Amino acid sequence: MKGNAIIGQSGGPTSVINASLCGVIEACRQVADIENAYGMRFGIQGFMEENLINLSAEDAAVIKGLRSTPGSALGSCRYKVQEADFARIIEVLRKYNIRYFFLIGGNDTMDTIHRVEAHCQAAGYNLIGVGVPKTVDNDLFGTDHTPGFGSAARYVALSVRQAGWLARDMQKVDQFVVFQTVGREAGWLAAASALARTQEGDAPHIILMPERPFDKDKFLGWVQAAYDRWGFVSVVVGEGVCYADGRPVSASETTDRFSNIEFGAMGGASAATALHRMIADTFGWRGEFQITESLPMCGADRASKADIDEAYACGAKAVELAAQGVTGVMVSIVREASTPYSVQLKTAPLSDVAVRAKPMPDAFINAEGNDITPAFLEYVRPLVGDLPDYGRLTNITVS
Amino acid sequence: MKGNAIIGQSGGPTSVINASLCGVIEACRQVADIENAYGMRFGIQGFMEENLINLSAEDAAVIKGLRSTPGSALGSCRYKVQEADFARIIEVLRKYNIRYFFLIGGNDTMDTIHRVEAHCQAAGYNLIGVGVPKTVDNDLFGTDHTPGFGSAARYVALSVRQAGWLARDMQKVDQFVVFQTVGREAGWLAAASALARTQEGDAPHIILMPERPFDKDKFLGWVQAAYDRWGFVSVVVGEGVCYADGRPVSASETTDRFSNIEFGAMGGASAATALHRMIADTFGWRGEFQITESLPMCGADRASKADIDEAYACGAKAVELAAQGVTGVMVSIVREASTPYSVQLKTAPLSDVAVRAKPMPDAFINAEGNDITPAFLEYVRPLVGDLPDYGRLTNITVS
Repeated sequence: MKGNAIIGQSGGPTSVINASLCGVIEACRQVADIENAYGMRFGIQGFMEENLINLSAEDAAVIKGLRSTPGSALGSCRYKVQEADFARIIEVLRKYNIRYFFLIGGNDTMDTIHRVEAHCQAAGYNLIGVGVPKTVDNDLFGTDHTPGFGSAARYVALSVRQAGWLARDMQKVDQFVVFQTVGREAGWLAAASALARTQEGDAPHIILMPERPFDKDKFLGWVQAAYDRWGFVSVVVGEGVCYADGRPVSASETTDRFSNIEFGAMGGASAATALHRMIADTFGWRGEFQITESLPMCGADRASKADIDEAYACGAKAVELAAQGVTGVMVSIVREASTPYSVQLKTAPLSDVAVRAKPMPDAFINAEGNDITPAFLEYVRPLVGDLPDYGRLTNITVS
Repeated sequence: MKGNAIIGQSGGPTSVINASLCGVIEACRQVADIENAYGMRFGIQGFMEENLINLSAEDAAVIKGLRSTPGSALGSCRYKVQEADFARIIEVLRKYNIRYFFLIGGNDTMDTIHRVEAHCQAAGYNLIGVGVPKTVDNDLFGTDHTPGFGSAARYVALSVRQAGWLARDMQKVDQFVVFQTVGREAGWLAAASALARTQEGDAPHIILMPERPFDKDKFLGWVQAAYDRWGFVSVVVGEGVCYADGRPVSASETTDRFSNIEFGAMGGASAATALHRMIADTFGWRGEFQITESLPMCGADRASKADIDEAYACGAKAVELAAQGVTGVMVSIVREASTPYSVQLKTAPLSDVAVRAKPMPDAFINAEGNDITPAFLEYVRPLVGDLPDYGRLTNITVS
């Protein structure tokens, strides 16, 4: 089907969402039926305002540079498409003869493609819609993992390792450190901090994931035990951790336009500050909390190579599928093996992906609910790649 | 003078304090008069407890590895030496026949060396004491800059650049971002964020340094102007920023609606949360704050090459001076030129360094007090080195 393609980016960025964009654009150049690859500025909102740019007219070197550029180069949005919007969307599609519709995003984005596609079908307008997965949270259904997760996980693991080295050496001054990761529903990023360890006693000592209810007494017991054993305590907490009754550990909460509860810096309160206060009040220790918020989503210099490559490949695959007439799917990463690591790119129906989130499976969380299992390490290691290791003195006592 | 050397690390770490340690140890191996290089575990506190290790017995590869290892490998402390401690200190010096005394640290550390040296002289015990400068805050008197600053500055500039790319692309969702740097007295690190920019409109738009009083109305005016011009606002704030009456900005918002939350990574308050609240309340915008605390002090993968080299050289120079019988000084970096960058290592009297802090000079801060001057960029650029640049789409409108 001859026509133009449109590409959009939606939701929060990752360090590699522009690599996916690069993959889509470069692949579009190889498809004879695709005349021009257009970009929608600021997602579907910009699309409805005809805020469109011609990516086919960009210099090839600029497009190539996207592979290592943070942010969402097209501009992003979090607009929830209303039923009343579809007439306008179809109008713009027709006006620009757009027949290929690609969005790079998470659940909400896949839902948008799904609904646009259905409305086009009902209106008798032929459109092929394919989604490219993206989220640092890794909670997207229908794929082994999401592009963006590996790089954010690498940022988190590296930060927790470095901060752990520091905390070990500063234990006579500060007794604890709390590092908060994003991730409202799922603990994938908090869990990935386990990669920071290379020997027993290394940070992190406690990993709190939203998949397990927070119990203050148990938590303080774990803190005491870690301190007694290692002389300092490193805690990693996923922002969405809640008490058994569903109350977030963060002191207050607000909701965004998708009725998602906002944690951390957006909501003005955070799990890290709450835990920090809890530990300081209970033990009288000094410590610090680290709230990096979206920095792991844009730390391009710390991106995982596997992640960049997969993000690009997912973008290119979406175009390949579309050129074959495949529609209504998201590109899906299917793992064939962890050692040596290999994946295949397949598809998942948009309808499945749109409505479900993927928490950490029980097999990845330890019985106490304060750490991960070896199975998780096997899962996550190839996504993150090697981390720099650091020297340790033998500490030979002077006799 | 034949005898042993002792080396200690004090205060907060930097990404390169272990490079200085490496420099001291490797240089000690070249000095015939120095029999063994000992390390004090956890600074002068550990020294008094005879918590000493033999660094000369460590494998050369382990010592070399310190050059790229974060943390303070010997362990650190913040203990202020009391008059009553000196008898014990001299006792331990005598017991281990220590004649060379090296500490890597900031003002307080230089004060410690100075006093130890004076007490030894009074007690008729021959000791050579040389200080190696260190602090990410860059507020040490008697040196052009301090080892550790360039690497922390690089971390800050890189983070603000990456977060700026993200904020630009997310402006339809979030309108502002506040990044907080450490630095209670001086704005050197906040100022270094200016290196994030490569063209007009790039983050940061507003830089708040403790050297200038905070004025809420002016600040909100700057925020509005930046938003009107660029569509989003990036603010960088040094943690120690105060109102004209000396009240910290961090304390200003902790009493009303967030009285139940303990802000600030050390259990105190945070300027970033206060500014975040101020902007959100005034404009009704969404935004985030980023509090990285000590992460820029240990981000070894982001260290500046010039900084690593200088940190190592300062350590080696301290030993060279000591071997020549020079005592009572701190190694000082004297800049000869910025373009091309060249320095010489000289000395500053410990007595001068110990008691003074170095704020940003007026010539480095703009008239409005919300940004830096070109002279500061010339000063800071060689310390930080090149930063990765990122791609920008031309955004060719579809006709």
